[in-house]
Amino acid sequence: MNTASPEDTLAETASVRGSTLASDFTSSLAVDRRMYREDIAASTAHAKMLGRQSIIPQSDADAIIDGLARIRVEMEEDAFDWRPDLEDIHMNVEARLYELIGDVAGKLHTARSRNDQVATDFRLYTMRRADQSVAGCRRLQRALLDQADAHRETLLPGYTHLQRAQPIVFGHVMMAYYEMLGRDADAFKSARDTADCCPLGSGALAGTTYQIDREFVASELGFSRVSRNSMDAVSDRDFVLDYLFAAAKSMIHLSRLAEDIVVWSSQEFGFVRLSDSYSTGSSMMPQKRNPDYAELVRGKSGRVAGALMSMLMTMKGLPMTYNRDLQEDKQQLMDAADTVQAALDACAGMVSEMVVDKSRAAEAASDPVLLATDVADRLVREEGVPFREAYSEVKARVLGDADGAESLPELTAQESVAMRDVVGGTAPARVSEAVMRAYGELWAARLRGEW
Amino acid sequence: MNTASPEDTLAETASVRGSTLASDFTSSLAVDRRMYREDIAASTAHAKMLGRQSIIPQSDADAIIDGLARIRVEMEEDAFDWRPDLEDIHMNVEARLYELIGDVAGKLHTARSRNDQVATDFRLYTMRRADQSVAGCRRLQRALLDQADAHRETLLPGYTHLQRAQPIVFGHVMMAYYEMLGRDADAFKSARDTADCCPLGSGALAGTTYQIDREFVASELGFSRVSRNSMDAVSDRDFVLDYLFAAAKSMIHLSRLAEDIVVWSSQEFGFVRLSDSYSTGSSMMPQKRNPDYAELVRGKSGRVAGALMSMLMTMKGLPMTYNRDLQEDKQQLMDAADTVQAALDACAGMVSEMVVDKSRAAEAASDPVLLATDVADRLVREEGVPFREAYSEVKARVLGDADGAESLPELTAQESVAMRDVVGGTAPARVSEAVMRAYGELWAARLRGEW
Amino acid sequence: MNTASPEDTLAETASVRGSTLASDFTSSLAVDRRMYREDIAASTAHAKMLGRQSIIPQSDADAIIDGLARIRVEMEEDAFDWRPDLEDIHMNVEARLYELIGDVAGKLHTARSRNDQVATDFRLYTMRRADQSVAGCRRLQRALLDQADAHRETLLPGYTHLQRAQPIVFGHVMMAYYEMLGRDADAFKSARDTADCCPLGSGALAGTTYQIDREFVASELGFSRVSRNSMDAVSDRDFVLDYLFAAAKSMIHLSRLAEDIVVWSSQEFGFVRLSDSYSTGSSMMPQKRNPDYAELVRGKSGRVAGALMSMLMTMKGLPMTYNRDLQEDKQQLMDAADTVQAALDACAGMVSEMVVDKSRAAEAASDPVLLATDVADRLVREEGVPFREAYSEVKARVLGDADGAESLPELTAQESVAMRDVVGGTAPARVSEAVMRAYGELWAARLRGEW
Amino acid sequence: MNTASPEDTLAETASVRGSTLASDFTSSLAVDRRMYREDIAASTAHAKMLGRQSIIPQSDADAIIDGLARIRVEMEEDAFDWRPDLEDIHMNVEARLYELIGDVAGKLHTARSRNDQVATDFRLYTMRRADQSVAGCRRLQRALLDQADAHRETLLPGYTHLQRAQPIVFGHVMMAYYEMLGRDADAFKSARDTADCCPLGSGALAGTTYQIDREFVASELGFSRVSRNSMDAVSDRDFVLDYLFAAAKSMIHLSRLAEDIVVWSSQEFGFVRLSDSYSTGSSMMPQKRNPDYAELVRGKSGRVAGALMSMLMTMKGLPMTYNRDLQEDKQQLMDAADTVQAALDACAGMVSEMVVDKSRAAEAASDPVLLATDVADRLVREEGVPFREAYSEVKARVLGDADGAESLPELTAQESVAMRDVVGGTAPARVSEAVMRAYGELWAARLRGEW
Repeated sequence: MNTASPEDTLAETASVRGSTLASDFTSSLAVDRRMYREDIAASTAHAKMLGRQSIIPQSDADAIIDGLARIRVEMEEDAFDWRPDLEDIHMNVEARLYELIGDVAGKLHTARSRNDQVATDFRLYTMRRADQSVAGCRRLQRALLDQADAHRETLLPGYTHLQRAQPIVFGHVMMAYYEMLGRDADAFKSARDTADCCPLGSGALAGTTYQIDREFVASELGFSRVSRNSMDAVSDRDFVLDYLFAAAKSMIHLSRLAEDIVVWSSQEFGFVRLSDSYSTGSSMMPQKRNPDYAELVRGKSGRVAGALMSMLMTMKGLPMTYNRDLQEDKQQLMDAADTVQAALDACAGMVSEMVVDKSRAAEAASDPVLLATDVADRLVREEGVPFREAYSEVKARVLGDADGAESLPELTAQESVAMRDVVGGTAPARVSEAVMRAYGELWAARLRGEW
Repeated sequence: MNTASPEDTLAETASVRGSTLASDFTSSLAVDRRMYREDIAASTAHAKMLGRQSIIPQSDADAIIDGLARIRVEMEEDAFDWRPDLEDIHMNVEARLYELIGDVAGKLHTARSRNDQVATDFRLYTMRRADQSVAGCRRLQRALLDQADAHRETLLPGYTHLQRAQPIVFGHVMMAYYEMLGRDADAFKSARDTADCCPLGSGALAGTTYQIDREFVASELGFSRVSRNSMDAVSDRDFVLDYLFAAAKSMIHLSRLAEDIVVWSSQEFGFVRLSDSYSTGSSMMPQKRNPDYAELVRGKSGRVAGALMSMLMTMKGLPMTYNRDLQEDKQQLMDAADTVQAALDACAGMVSEMVVDKSRAAEAASDPVLLATDVADRLVREEGVPFREAYSEVKARVLGDADGAESLPELTAQESVAMRDVVGGTAPARVSEAVMRAYGELWAARLRGEW
Repeated sequence: MNTASPEDTLAETASVRGSTLASDFTSSLAVDRRMYREDIAASTAHAKMLGRQSIIPQSDADAIIDGLARIRVEMEEDAFDWRPDLEDIHMNVEARLYELIGDVAGKLHTARSRNDQVATDFRLYTMRRADQSVAGCRRLQRALLDQADAHRETLLPGYTHLQRAQPIVFGHVMMAYYEMLGRDADAFKSARDTADCCPLGSGALAGTTYQIDREFVASELGFSRVSRNSMDAVSDRDFVLDYLFAAAKSMIHLSRLAEDIVVWSSQEFGFVRLSDSYSTGSSMMPQKRNPDYAELVRGKSGRVAGALMSMLMTMKGLPMTYNRDLQEDKQQLMDAADTVQAALDACAGMVSEMVVDKSRAAEAASDPVLLATDVADRLVREEGVPFREAYSEVKARVLGDADGAESLPELTAQESVAMRDVVGGTAPARVSEAVMRAYGELWAARLRGEW
Repeated sequence: MNTASPEDTLAETASVRGSTLASDFTSSLAVDRRMYREDIAASTAHAKMLGRQSIIPQSDADAIIDGLARIRVEMEEDAFDWRPDLEDIHMNVEARLYELIGDVAGKLHTARSRNDQVATDFRLYTMRRADQSVAGCRRLQRALLDQADAHRETLLPGYTHLQRAQPIVFGHVMMAYYEMLGRDADAFKSARDTADCCPLGSGALAGTTYQIDREFVASELGFSRVSRNSMDAVSDRDFVLDYLFAAAKSMIHLSRLAEDIVVWSSQEFGFVRLSDSYSTGSSMMPQKRNPDYAELVRGKSGRVAGALMSMLMTMKGLPMTYNRDLQEDKQQLMDAADTVQAALDACAGMVSEMVVDKSRAAEAASDPVLLATDVADRLVREEGVPFREAYSEVKARVLGDADGAESLPELTAQESVAMRDVVGGTAPARVSEAVMRAYGELWAARLRGEW
């Protein structure tokens, strides 16, 4: 027996298009060449399996694998001659393989179609980017954690409605963002899990007629499972949506951090001073620091949410199975991954280098308005004053005389925060506990190789 | 010592607003009254804990718990007098509680704020809706599975680009959708997990000063853990985003199913006939069946994706911690949950009752175009014909003479599908396997109480 | 000859559906009953035309018109018995008309289909809502203008990057928003123009076979033109998209105004004090004013942008012509129109009643940082000092000694703003000019009946 | 007097940032260098005005203008040395100008800031792209019109719900799309009008202190008016939103055309055959034509709608005035403009070259189902048969006997379409009228220079 014939490929599409006019429109090369590692790896695993299963002679498999290795080297050494007329990375690799090893190159397409090949490459690529995103989250978590550690007792006002509400410690805010980023890391890992499913062997849409070993290929490529339905496998892009959603959600968190930093950096709040590296100043007025990085992060949240929206809309109403509409998937994911990566890095740097103006923050935190409730509460609890009476007394003092604020010395902001000694509360003791536990978590994440 | 004073509540907001002009704008009652079960349950658990911790006398706790039970009965018997002027469900319950048990009602707010109360209610509500959504997915999976079971050997063309590509069996398409819906159920469960975290005890933003037992309250309410940072807890709406994303993704899947059904129901395709219950006809032309339900499902995918977008945009750039912008969260989630539930149910009914026109499908599946590749492939594999030669021969036959199609009897559609005997392939044997495994999965899900 | 037969209606859809299970899913009654005025008006005009053209006897036309008038009165007096089982407003009106005038009611559908009827009603409704939105913009413009007029000389810092940049007058900021709202009014008018095109006479999709007078009907209904292609007419929803876009863009402007107000209302900025009607306070701390209305406006911008997104997605990829997906259009538009109306009104009230703290604003505006450039510039221009030298001198003063700020008395904020005496500049004289012109514009808009 | 000092520039931002780490994040050069024509033109006009107003010596103005002209030539001849470290096009031009003409280059920034400069460039650029988009619409309208002209009498079924409804002529469908594209052209023109407003002279945010002539600059650059409020001018991006919305709406229309083409090209419908240039085939099965271009157009509608969403979200909640978030605007607009341009061109080519299979279309159009209503109607109108009786008779025939269809010879599809002789109807005479008028419109558009 022997066979070198592309099987499902023919049922599918070999471009016979003539028009050059619209080639930019259909070409995906500029985008998908970023997946070259994955494309070479997937082809290599496939060839290995074809040989192992005796679907093609072992010598042919070896020739293909050698050729692919050479191509990868060429690409990495920037010596590969990319041909835009070949539209995508797959055709570029194929054409070069023919040059390097001759007609045996054609056997690589045995028992494989463009549809399952593209899906495989893109899933591998998404897994890699998701891993990077997790690492990005961890680095930002580390930066937040270090600031939290340094400011376990630094007082500032906590806000609701951007109105001063209660005193808190700066470390507590940092830990709130630490929590958000932890959920983001989980979401990226979850997106990776969705992607972690090998579609190779699904053919154009119906499966292949060869006796392939799908589990072997999956295992070679680091997938933990194989897809269970060929029609679903070639047209499913849930892993793209999951990644884009994780990215969009993370950008929303970063946009909130950015907003806080913009507000804190204003002359009026003045709680935080950004470093030169993460602000733009005027040479004339060195004290001025435009929080450009924070603003860019905040602005780019729209970009990533837009990418998610784009992909949802592109997928909407597509009939089974593969449709060319899906070509849009890669650029959206790549742009989102680049953006969220840059934003995470920018935030990590910005947070690491920002300096808290402890005295301004403490001064604001000592605003008697912030303590009125606690004072009334203390009167009730410790002096047995009925609540309504305590309330009236405090209210009278706050309102009654303009300078009356000074006559509320029963409680300091330090005492107020210390009293909130509950799981999740802002009491420095609780924040310290949270910080310690978080260092442990990040350490465990490092042991798992996440960053 | 004792105290009944609202603590963090005061630091927060008691409405002193006068304007009635804009009350519709700020009122959330019409929306949040749907969470009455959750609000009563959360208050009951809180009161129980306050008594247990001796923060309020046990007799007061009992009075509160009794009062809340009576309110719940009133609500369930539609005997509760909802007052729109009180703006939200929480104030309605509170006012009624005062009427029922007098001033002790005020003690319910000890060690709790509106911010952590709202977050708790809404998390419980989201968990309930997510459970329902999972059940909806399971029911649709069951309907798909039954059709798959009935059509393990029913031939029809498989399409790529809406062009006939290869023969498949109808059961295989159904199982593709079964897979998608399985991922949707997972996504809803994942959203439930995000919500499953008790924020009660976070106060307005900084935690509470009372010696509360957060784990007890969480356990009473069926939460599996408590939140770790109070500032995050009162302003985090990731669980809403997660639910909305799961809903949007599921609607995308349903929009694809709907598109397939619309196309299959056209006179030109004619593979499927919808039942009277899920189509709209003309009394004059009973053979006409407008697939209105499928179209509505497809159209409503925009609505749910829009809800996701709305919430992402609402969250964007919000400073810490609670901001009133967040009031938008409930309506978006409720509308999305209602929509996806109705769409899942509509699809389950539509799929259950649709009838496949086996003969039209089989006729289309016998289009020689669909088999050309397999024929060429067989010439190569079984007769040792070199690939290019086999290819030319088949091409000549397909093109050469108009009636030439009949001269390709070497392969039937049945044989073609049977050959795709690979994991995930369309071979009836493989589809049968998949169906059996799926019945097992759904059975296991039932044992877990998912539906 | 005469005829009362529904023509295109039959070709279209008379529901023969049995299922009640999913009736909520397909029913649009709760939504489209809000268009009752338009539905009655359109039917009345149609009947009048049918009589005038002798397509039905004049006496039949008169009976129909009388019946419709009675139905409208019933609806307005809340005496109409809405039947949910009839699914939409059109069937409700039709059923009642049969009750009132008997079988002649059926003649109303001569030369008309549900598709062109729905499109006509909805265009009329959209025109009405767009008119209201324009009026809402005008009212807010008026509120902004009155504040601008009152604060033509009130100094405060102008910000870029939320950093103090240059002194401006408060009236100038108000006029910036006045400009935005003027563009919004234009956009709503433009959406109205898109809607202003009568589709009646397009039948189900292909036109009608009767000798109708489309121009007459259009004119009766206040349309300024008739549609030019029947297929486009029954499936075009550009007017919905145009309205939603205008609404979304306006909400973006309002979200910016809301953000400014939130920031200005913070204790740290303190430039503006909201009235009781547009803020929520604590009974204990009356000086505290949560800007809830501003936050709700900001939050609801997501809702309206989401509605736009929903409708874009619903329209995407719909084949010709009418598809039931389009049923989604009305709820999205109505919700967006309600939201933007409430937001415009809330902003108008909030802006009217807010009080500027002139002294705090002026104090902030006198920050020497704001004037450094102008001072250097003046040294160059008036004293002939070379630029680099002037620059160094000013820089030294700003940086050099902590109290050095006082040694820059050459320029006040008043002088600085006065110098920006250019078209569009913040010089009070320019702002006054702008205010005067704007009053003229609003007056002209009133004369046009816009508000 | 003399002055060369940058005025508002200093108040604004001269980068003193050190970090190269995140330079990709903040750099906009790759994007904004596409606006080089506009940047040079705006600077040239500004310099001319400065000289004319004697704000700088005429000889300095001349030197600057000469330098800018040389830079433009360098750029056009690809001889310009772009420096990525300079972050944006403005700094690149500035740096080169210093090299070419020395320190006098600095005088170009007199009475101008980066904020108003960027806004000016981008408005000019948007106007240019909008003009191109209008031309793209016109070309596609022309292609649709030629097909309409060729198929004024070509019968095919008209569809609602993708169900056959009534016979129409193919030209009528083409004219429906012609109408949509006409509205698109209007929307692009409207976006151009929004952009057509010169912000130069607004300074950083407050106006300039120099006696500039804003009308002169505007006129030099082809703007028809100047902005009226400096704060609005530097932070307004409504013109971007308007362009993105026009592009998104147009893509929605194209997605519908694409869907129709995909459906028509299926083997089951078979009404249209795409040319080789606009389809992808299999070398083995030349009769197969995957409608890749149509699918890409449909898929890319998500991309453009996503861009709109991105920009709405980026703008949401931005405080006055300029914020760095706005940097996102250019890439979104450029990508959308490129995409819609390519999609319009692809559709124009695809429509021009597609071939209608008249016989298959006519055969489908002769389906008696399509004529049942018209037949019943004719019985009523011409033979005086009561409606219900006519109806029953036709229904019996359609249902009664399988071959009964032949017994309905009273009406042909030709007659049916001819009867719909109403404004906007599908009667060939009406379609011919519409085609003639449309040629006149396109001719007028050409005379206006739109294409």
